[in-house]
Amino acid sequence: MVCENPSKENLKTPGSLGFFCCARPNVSFRSNLSYLLPGKCTHRMIVVMDQNVADELIDNVTKRVQELGLKAHVIRGTERTVIAAVGDERMVKVESFESFPGVAEVMPILAPYKMASRELKPESTQVKVGPFRAGAGVIGVIGGPCSVESEEQIVQSAKAVKAAGGTALRGGAFKPRTSPYSFQGMKEEGLKLLALARQETGLAVVTEVMSTEDVPLVAKYADVLQIGARNMQNYRLLEAVGRSGRAVLLKRGPSASIEEWLLAAEYILNEGNPDVMLCERGIRTFETHTRFTLPLATVPYLHRKTHLPVIVDPSHGTGHSYLVADMAAASVAAGADGLIVEMHPNPEKAMSDGYQSLDFKQFQEMMNRCNVIAKALGKTFG
Amino acid sequence: MVCENPSKENLKTPGSLGFFCCARPNVSFRSNLSYLLPGKCTHRMIVVMDQNVADELIDNVTKRVQELGLKAHVIRGTERTVIAAVGDERMVKVESFESFPGVAEVMPILAPYKMASRELKPESTQVKVGPFRAGAGVIGVIGGPCSVESEEQIVQSAKAVKAAGGTALRGGAFKPRTSPYSFQGMKEEGLKLLALARQETGLAVVTEVMSTEDVPLVAKYADVLQIGARNMQNYRLLEAVGRSGRAVLLKRGPSASIEEWLLAAEYILNEGNPDVMLCERGIRTFETHTRFTLPLATVPYLHRKTHLPVIVDPSHGTGHSYLVADMAAASVAAGADGLIVEMHPNPEKAMSDGYQSLDFKQFQEMMNRCNVIAKALGKTFG
Amino acid sequence: MVCENPSKENLKTPGSLGFFCCARPNVSFRSNLSYLLPGKCTHRMIVVMDQNVADELIDNVTKRVQELGLKAHVIRGTERTVIAAVGDERMVKVESFESFPGVAEVMPILAPYKMASRELKPESTQVKVGPFRAGAGVIGVIGGPCSVESEEQIVQSAKAVKAAGGTALRGGAFKPRTSPYSFQGMKEEGLKLLALARQETGLAVVTEVMSTEDVPLVAKYADVLQIGARNMQNYRLLEAVGRSGRAVLLKRGPSASIEEWLLAAEYILNEGNPDVMLCERGIRTFETHTRFTLPLATVPYLHRKTHLPVIVDPSHGTGHSYLVADMAAASVAAGADGLIVEMHPNPEKAMSDGYQSLDFKQFQEMMNRCNVIAKALGKTFG
Amino acid sequence: MVCENPSKENLKTPGSLGFFCCARPNVSFRSNLSYLLPGKCTHRMIVVMDQNVADELIDNVTKRVQELGLKAHVIRGTERTVIAAVGDERMVKVESFESFPGVAEVMPILAPYKMASRELKPESTQVKVGPFRAGAGVIGVIGGPCSVESEEQIVQSAKAVKAAGGTALRGGAFKPRTSPYSFQGMKEEGLKLLALARQETGLAVVTEVMSTEDVPLVAKYADVLQIGARNMQNYRLLEAVGRSGRAVLLKRGPSASIEEWLLAAEYILNEGNPDVMLCERGIRTFETHTRFTLPLATVPYLHRKTHLPVIVDPSHGTGHSYLVADMAAASVAAGADGLIVEMHPNPEKAMSDGYQSLDFKQFQEMMNRCNVIAKALGKTFG
Repeated sequence: MVCENPSKENLKTPGSLGFFCCARPNVSFRSNLSYLLPGKCTHRMIVVMDQNVADELIDNVTKRVQELGLKAHVIRGTERTVIAAVGDERMVKVESFESFPGVAEVMPILAPYKMASRELKPESTQVKVGPFRAGAGVIGVIGGPCSVESEEQIVQSAKAVKAAGGTALRGGAFKPRTSPYSFQGMKEEGLKLLALARQETGLAVVTEVMSTEDVPLVAKYADVLQIGARNMQNYRLLEAVGRSGRAVLLKRGPSASIEEWLLAAEYILNEGNPDVMLCERGIRTFETHTRFTLPLATVPYLHRKTHLPVIVDPSHGTGHSYLVADMAAASVAAGADGLIVEMHPNPEKAMSDGYQSLDFKQFQEMMNRCNVIAKALGKTFG
Repeated sequence: MVCENPSKENLKTPGSLGFFCCARPNVSFRSNLSYLLPGKCTHRMIVVMDQNVADELIDNVTKRVQELGLKAHVIRGTERTVIAAVGDERMVKVESFESFPGVAEVMPILAPYKMASRELKPESTQVKVGPFRAGAGVIGVIGGPCSVESEEQIVQSAKAVKAAGGTALRGGAFKPRTSPYSFQGMKEEGLKLLALARQETGLAVVTEVMSTEDVPLVAKYADVLQIGARNMQNYRLLEAVGRSGRAVLLKRGPSASIEEWLLAAEYILNEGNPDVMLCERGIRTFETHTRFTLPLATVPYLHRKTHLPVIVDPSHGTGHSYLVADMAAASVAAGADGLIVEMHPNPEKAMSDGYQSLDFKQFQEMMNRCNVIAKALGKTFG
Repeated sequence: MVCENPSKENLKTPGSLGFFCCARPNVSFRSNLSYLLPGKCTHRMIVVMDQNVADELIDNVTKRVQELGLKAHVIRGTERTVIAAVGDERMVKVESFESFPGVAEVMPILAPYKMASRELKPESTQVKVGPFRAGAGVIGVIGGPCSVESEEQIVQSAKAVKAAGGTALRGGAFKPRTSPYSFQGMKEEGLKLLALARQETGLAVVTEVMSTEDVPLVAKYADVLQIGARNMQNYRLLEAVGRSGRAVLLKRGPSASIEEWLLAAEYILNEGNPDVMLCERGIRTFETHTRFTLPLATVPYLHRKTHLPVIVDPSHGTGHSYLVADMAAASVAAGADGLIVEMHPNPEKAMSDGYQSLDFKQFQEMMNRCNVIAKALGKTFG
Repeated sequence: MVCENPSKENLKTPGSLGFFCCARPNVSFRSNLSYLLPGKCTHRMIVVMDQNVADELIDNVTKRVQELGLKAHVIRGTERTVIAAVGDERMVKVESFESFPGVAEVMPILAPYKMASRELKPESTQVKVGPFRAGAGVIGVIGGPCSVESEEQIVQSAKAVKAAGGTALRGGAFKPRTSPYSFQGMKEEGLKLLALARQETGLAVVTEVMSTEDVPLVAKYADVLQIGARNMQNYRLLEAVGRSGRAVLLKRGPSASIEEWLLAAEYILNEGNPDVMLCERGIRTFETHTRFTLPLATVPYLHRKTHLPVIVDPSHGTGHSYLVADMAAASVAAGADGLIVEMHPNPEKAMSDGYQSLDFKQFQEMMNRCNVIAKALGKTFG
């Protein structure tokens, strides 16, 4: 039973190794095993039977495995029997074995992402946009205010970022608001101010895009399109930025597993866009003394699993300006390929997120500290 | 300093008590206190000063509070001083007190949602769509498959839902897929099949809408628009369904706090749409034996905080068909105003989520059990 | 290589199927798979190799599996090879395959608890202590104050519990305190008051024991020894109550997985004490509107995995008196075998946890509601 | 109403500022606000009333506040009234205001720990034991195997730790086991081997103590007593190590808040033992790719709140040897005062936790990297 929903990638390049087809990356996948549970496509899995089940039930599962074009290996233990289903190159749709009588558990074997995986591409990817570089031993630093507020504010910020050694400017032109008036008024004007700041400093511009309709406009002005944490699984938006011709900074959702995140990256890569950066910005846990919990082990873990650069956001990841520099330094020491940090000419007067923004002096001090560590580790800033 | 971004609601009804203005409901707000931290609008807050601060620092804060049009009440303790800032009817924009010298902590007082709150509207809201009713003592049951697959599948399902006492049919016409082909092919056809099933059974139709562009099309066929967990904070989509003229089922995001969820509902209500139902479908925790953790205390807690009906989804909330009926019964006992449950003519063959779907017989048994409990508690099904 | 640390159980009953030996149940085991990771004992596992590994690495693993007395089944796929290691009756110590070159992942197959599992004992266990019964269709209700405060308070409470249909009295005689004075003064006196209340009402007495030294004293007065959430993995204490001759109420730790909890129960069962009740009292999650998150799907899930009765504590599980009755009703509907509920003659004056205690009238109303549901479901109170 | 359970500290030093008395540090305290909810002792709090409550209800609360010896400041807003209760030096027991009619919320103001707080003691504490120093700019490194297995294993390990620049040796002599035989056999012998290794290398010895009875024995051989994560709230054990005359390494419980952890430290300090080190070893979250989630923002956050040294355990915090060195480096960059790292002559053959242990070469490389970073930051190893 060949999969009736082959991925676009596979249609384009027959014979490719793309092994997930209708596997729906889903907010509701729980563990790193469950993503390929019945109903999803995979190539191989382990079906663990209940204790002492009748041979007939084992045969049922075996038969179904074979119907699906997989080979079934039956392993009879002293108490339990296990059936390993191993596939070949063809795409298959695997139905629910969990609801088969006698089945105790189903475990898939392979990871569901491919283009993002280091198995496919062992060498590290470096994303380059203007003076900004991240990955493969180079650390790119993105600084700037939460929101674009005025020409003076954004140009001053850009100059301060550059002076401190950063190579990209962040700033929100599209921000979610209660009122449609504020929203309508800010968007293109904010983008133009970002472009102006780029003109004055040469920095690359990073800004968030929140909906499919806005992609062309934002792509006209920005160098890197940021996908916010809330949109990590907005598949249409992922596809749209995948076709935008711009590099993408993909923030992790606050309750996303690593697999869900890499699958979101896969959506972008699948559209032919290789310039994807992953941005760890903290997860939601029981902790309340920080806005989110920033799990830096993500950095070396991702470096084993994927070739994509890993950026850390210590501003959202902690929510307090007094923790930002320490966590920026820790990120560099953990091997991060970049940082994205909120700063503002006057954090007390910032229109949003002022309490987690650094002022220019604090930003410079943070950069000094990160530089010392990077140099000690034989890395450079780009 | 009057807020420059008054909410649409306030513009429409001058003199109203609407107390959040540019308060940006945000995935990154952490605790139920932090949503009104500096940079957000609120009407009153408690500023706790550091120990033994100089009077000058206290005066700074007091002055700023007064500049913002709030009254400052200074409470001097033996070790610490606390400043209570209490507002009047005017909308104000409160800037970051946390970064003021000498400030230890800032705590807001009021909840940031208003139209959803029971304080504003003490009587419970009942949502009525065709035969379906939920709220104010009536329990509405929505059943059906995860995805619309065929006429036979959806019509059979609708008949089984009706036979068991349900009044609405669920079924996904828009499902996120890797391939654009499968997606393009399914959408309107699936909606037509849902409409056909409604014609044959009279059930109300509930289906998910995933993007702003699709709202008119989905609203043409469906009676209730479902906002999925991944889109709970997609504000444009919330606004669009708020203007759609259809009732809305708003699923909780897997890491959303109650406040974030009610603020998302506020977006819809704010567009003039009163027919909003909240759907608890489980949160992401460290537990791995269920797909999500289903926190039923949400039901009575929400009943205190809001007048909106609360629906429970025991299918996604557990991820295992064998747990669904028990949790459906528990939901009714906890006071739920409705249930949304996945069922399928043949769960083993389901194209998605088969392992958490009930078959028709199991669905009937679940309904029997819920009926007995509802009757014992003096409630009816609608 | 035979395990050098056979479990006591296995020593007592040679030839038994006891399959965990030196498996150290550990707070730090993460997922329901990781408990049997390298270094722990198990009888069977799946070793997934890296892609395209050399045959030599596969042979290394196979050889090691055989050295350990297990049979190795090698399954060669098109991309990966999987080695299933299946054991026989002998106890073996399995060393770390994860650190073997070429190994991608190791997955164990069987659950590590045995005496608690329903596989071993399919029929449900009913714990009976005086008038109190829990399990196998009978619901036992334990009510009473957080702390024993006075004769009047505890005897009045006991009478109110009995009048409402409860069969056991709870009350803390050993409470953790900063000061050793309060602690020393309360303990035996509190136990005597509990015994007095039992004498006057016939109720069974449930009280917490906090350290090994206190077990004989508490066992002298109490009918059921409660192990608090903080002590769920205090192995010496578990062994001591296992030898105490008293029934045990084992609370779940706020971050304990189901497996860790059942392994803790196994410690008690392993000492020859069959009267163990599991008590779900909520887990720690990102939610802040309740003290803990009460995951009721635990109840039907545990009923599939274990024969032991499952009690729910809606008082600690929510932390607010106004949520207790709803969650008690939901627990009964979910199939709970019992409830443990805090109540107090005057919650406002309670010395501890007053904000989550019911008064006598509220307790009676909760019982009325639970009774109606239990009757509707064909269950009785015991 | 003076508190009837004054803390020992207060009894000893009348007139002291010790402001928690019967405040029971409790696993079940949820947020950083809830620890001082009704039923606990505190000196000041904010009581938020419901909207538009009758003056009588406000008077009730005010009266009760005054009865408790606190001053009540009533702040009347346009919609709500807030009552600030501010105390003086006397210890008071505060009862449940949350269950008072008309009360919407209760918020405490001060942190409940005192001796651990930096407010009390602004300068950083340095713990010194033999050659080992941690705190105040000096980083102490503790290395060694999970369990003491043999003289050769522990002496070799100690030499490798010393050669790499570590100053303390870790090794478990008391490990939780299923079988009492293995346990009985290992304990004192293991301690003697640790002492022997100290004799040969001069390193300080760090080892876990699991129960009150074992404290004298362990204290006889060890220099630093480790309290494991499972015992973080075992108050008797905390008191016992507080009186042991040995420095203490207090691990964070996997679901403990910072406040609960500092309160646990307070127990030890309260016995007159100033040599307490806090050890972050990861919290339990929804993440499954690491054993725990290691939240390094804990380090700078604790440095603001407490003067005690903060040690990080990257071995348990990640659960994978390949993540340890990166997280050790990140910890040093984040400002950690020390590291505790598992290493073993032959991790593949380790009796426990081999998959997270480094071998000697990896340990040396980790130290080299940490040294470079420490030097760059102007810190030294001790």
